[in-house]
Amino acid sequence: MHSAVSVITTKRDGGELSDDQIDWVVDAFTRGEVADEQMAALAMAIVWRGMTRRETARWTTAMIGSGRRLDFTDLPRPTVDKHSTGGVGDKITLPLAPLVAACGAAVPQLSGRGLGHTGGTLDKLEAIAGWQADISVPRMREILADPKAGAVVCAAGVDLAPADKRLYALRDVTGTVESIPLIASSIMSKKIAEGTGALVLDVKVGRGAFMKEFDTARELATAMVELGADAGVRTVALLTAMNSPLGCTAGNALEVAESIEVLAGGGPADIVELTLALAREMLTQAGIDDVDPADALADGRAMDHWRAMVSAQGGDPDAPLPRAKHTETVKAPGTGTLTRLDALDIGLAVRRLGAGRARQGDPVQAGAGIVLHAKPGDPVSAGQPLLTLHTDTPEVIPSVLEALGGAFDIGAADEFTATPLLLDRIEP
Amino acid sequence: MHSAVSVITTKRDGGELSDDQIDWVVDAFTRGEVADEQMAALAMAIVWRGMTRRETARWTTAMIGSGRRLDFTDLPRPTVDKHSTGGVGDKITLPLAPLVAACGAAVPQLSGRGLGHTGGTLDKLEAIAGWQADISVPRMREILADPKAGAVVCAAGVDLAPADKRLYALRDVTGTVESIPLIASSIMSKKIAEGTGALVLDVKVGRGAFMKEFDTARELATAMVELGADAGVRTVALLTAMNSPLGCTAGNALEVAESIEVLAGGGPADIVELTLALAREMLTQAGIDDVDPADALADGRAMDHWRAMVSAQGGDPDAPLPRAKHTETVKAPGTGTLTRLDALDIGLAVRRLGAGRARQGDPVQAGAGIVLHAKPGDPVSAGQPLLTLHTDTPEVIPSVLEALGGAFDIGAADEFTATPLLLDRIEP
Repeated sequence: MHSAVSVITTKRDGGELSDDQIDWVVDAFTRGEVADEQMAALAMAIVWRGMTRRETARWTTAMIGSGRRLDFTDLPRPTVDKHSTGGVGDKITLPLAPLVAACGAAVPQLSGRGLGHTGGTLDKLEAIAGWQADISVPRMREILADPKAGAVVCAAGVDLAPADKRLYALRDVTGTVESIPLIASSIMSKKIAEGTGALVLDVKVGRGAFMKEFDTARELATAMVELGADAGVRTVALLTAMNSPLGCTAGNALEVAESIEVLAGGGPADIVELTLALAREMLTQAGIDDVDPADALADGRAMDHWRAMVSAQGGDPDAPLPRAKHTETVKAPGTGTLTRLDALDIGLAVRRLGAGRARQGDPVQAGAGIVLHAKPGDPVSAGQPLLTLHTDTPEVIPSVLEALGGAFDIGAADEFTATPLLLDRIEP
Repeated sequence: MHSAVSVITTKRDGGELSDDQIDWVVDAFTRGEVADEQMAALAMAIVWRGMTRRETARWTTAMIGSGRRLDFTDLPRPTVDKHSTGGVGDKITLPLAPLVAACGAAVPQLSGRGLGHTGGTLDKLEAIAGWQADISVPRMREILADPKAGAVVCAAGVDLAPADKRLYALRDVTGTVESIPLIASSIMSKKIAEGTGALVLDVKVGRGAFMKEFDTARELATAMVELGADAGVRTVALLTAMNSPLGCTAGNALEVAESIEVLAGGGPADIVELTLALAREMLTQAGIDDVDPADALADGRAMDHWRAMVSAQGGDPDAPLPRAKHTETVKAPGTGTLTRLDALDIGLAVRRLGAGRARQGDPVQAGAGIVLHAKPGDPVSAGQPLLTLHTDTPEVIPSVLEALGGAFDIGAADEFTATPLLLDRIEP
């Protein structure tokens, strides 16, 4: 006979939870027999004592088992998805999903909305007139099977890993978010339940990332890659830098516009580099080794898939993107090299301008955000535009300007050291 | 601005909670602003990280501040109370309270009901016809001021440390009972709120006690003595053995009868020894140094106070005590010395016979329990009565007999080593 107290005290005292204990506690939590206060105490005990690879795998399986698991193995093309742990200016999914679809894989991405200082992919795509995040599973399958589209980015239904959704909400208010096994299982339970055959993880490291330290990020990446392997989903992780924003925009419509530039063969170098690196990993995981994604970007095939993918979800790829009502330019206070541009400060400013939300359910402004006129390492002259703020609520501008005062440094060229975007690669 | 998450994460990360954080979180928990799941996570973080003496004292003060604090400083006599951490056969309060009152102190004891394998003082006294546990504070004051009674043992009102009551119920279901600072503050918040001027703690150690290990018991005793000192309540603790039951009875009416034997100048040696040791400590704490409690037992003064105290709470000291409907004798299976009689096994058997409860609110049988015909160290002959079981529900007897199979050992005289009852004394 299991009881919540016996499961909690096993973990509290440093023991390993048995498969039975994990299955029971997750199921009883789903049924409401294990109360929130009991799950909160267990979560804190897990933050304290950790979980072994076996425990984490079983926990993840139990979370998946609390709901529905999609299955796209009957599609004529291999499925592969990407998940990023969240950064500032990280619009990579937008060019990446149609690019990989253009190269012959199907991309079934269940995505989320932004919270805190990082943006959400669904918020970005919703800047496109008519675009719908809520897609039924049969329709999802149709879009994935459509050789012209082949990629779908939509909201996860409530029936995917519902126990994880409840647990995440609980961890958020009980100081129990910071546990590698719980973070890894939360991400992976949703990704495995969405039915992708393979997965590439983009684990961000740095000031603007959830993981500030390389070692912790590597530990998380390893835990997730192991969970993928244990669940039969081919998984590889890239560790990528998130100290300054990716690309030159942060904000919903602004990031869609920048993504379209990339799909048109242009766009900022870092976005193109990361998009191609992730595309190559995804194609390898999908078993497609005869296509160079750089060609599909250059010849317009990725753009064709983007248009088909947007249209398939009700969006008008030709509609003009929303623009914020007000802009304000931040000028460079001196001449020299932009030696630092802080991703966290920019992310918080973008949220404050209206592009993100402080609480779940808050509305977001499609046009709000920040355009960067210089990236770290670029030369700047006193008085030149450095950032342009976009917002529909100009009353926030003074406080945003004040908060941005410490977001960047201008110094001598030798004070800047370029750091690579791709930091490490973790495979099973 | 405090938030539950910031308080939880401070403790989770090994930090010390500020006075402000403690005051805020206990008050917000009392008001329902901090949810049970947040308090459960904080409790687990406290189990993990502990609390300093300052934190524990502040936590205790905040718990007391969540309700009413009684004040008996206007009584003409010094007040002193005793608290035991709970054992099997531990009826010491029954002879002790009137004995100390007979020696000139007033004893205001707010007590509890039994749960698990240890009995509750209120359950025992309720075996006396007419005796009432619920006494108003004005009536409590009258009894304490009455020179013929001077002692009151009653149920704690809901307005004493209500936050501790809620927290204790929460800890009980979340695997967070086992924290020395939380145990110490839970006990001491109630004892300090009851308004006693001095306190003697009987911290039990051994198989039948909550604390199985001497070092942990000593740690708990030290924490409680410190909390008393910090709150201005003169406090001393005795560490006493609880490997075998105290006295020769365990069960409600059975223990009342044995207590009356002690008050009549007889009774088992261990009960008399512990009662006198605790009485001497209580009188010292109360500043009364010219009375020997052994005299007050011998000359019937303690018995007079017992009768007055029982009558004051509606009880009839002359009414016959309830007897169980069924008895069953366990005979010694061999001849030799009783080398072991396990307090925990006896305590669980007594509960199962109907004298205790598995859940709060369960009724208890007044007559149920066990009488011991031999104590560890006594010679026994094969076939002599060893234990007599008393119960109104004879259907449980077979399973109790089976469970008692491992409760005792009979061996050679040299296999028994007498151990002292009084193990240590902790003062501020």
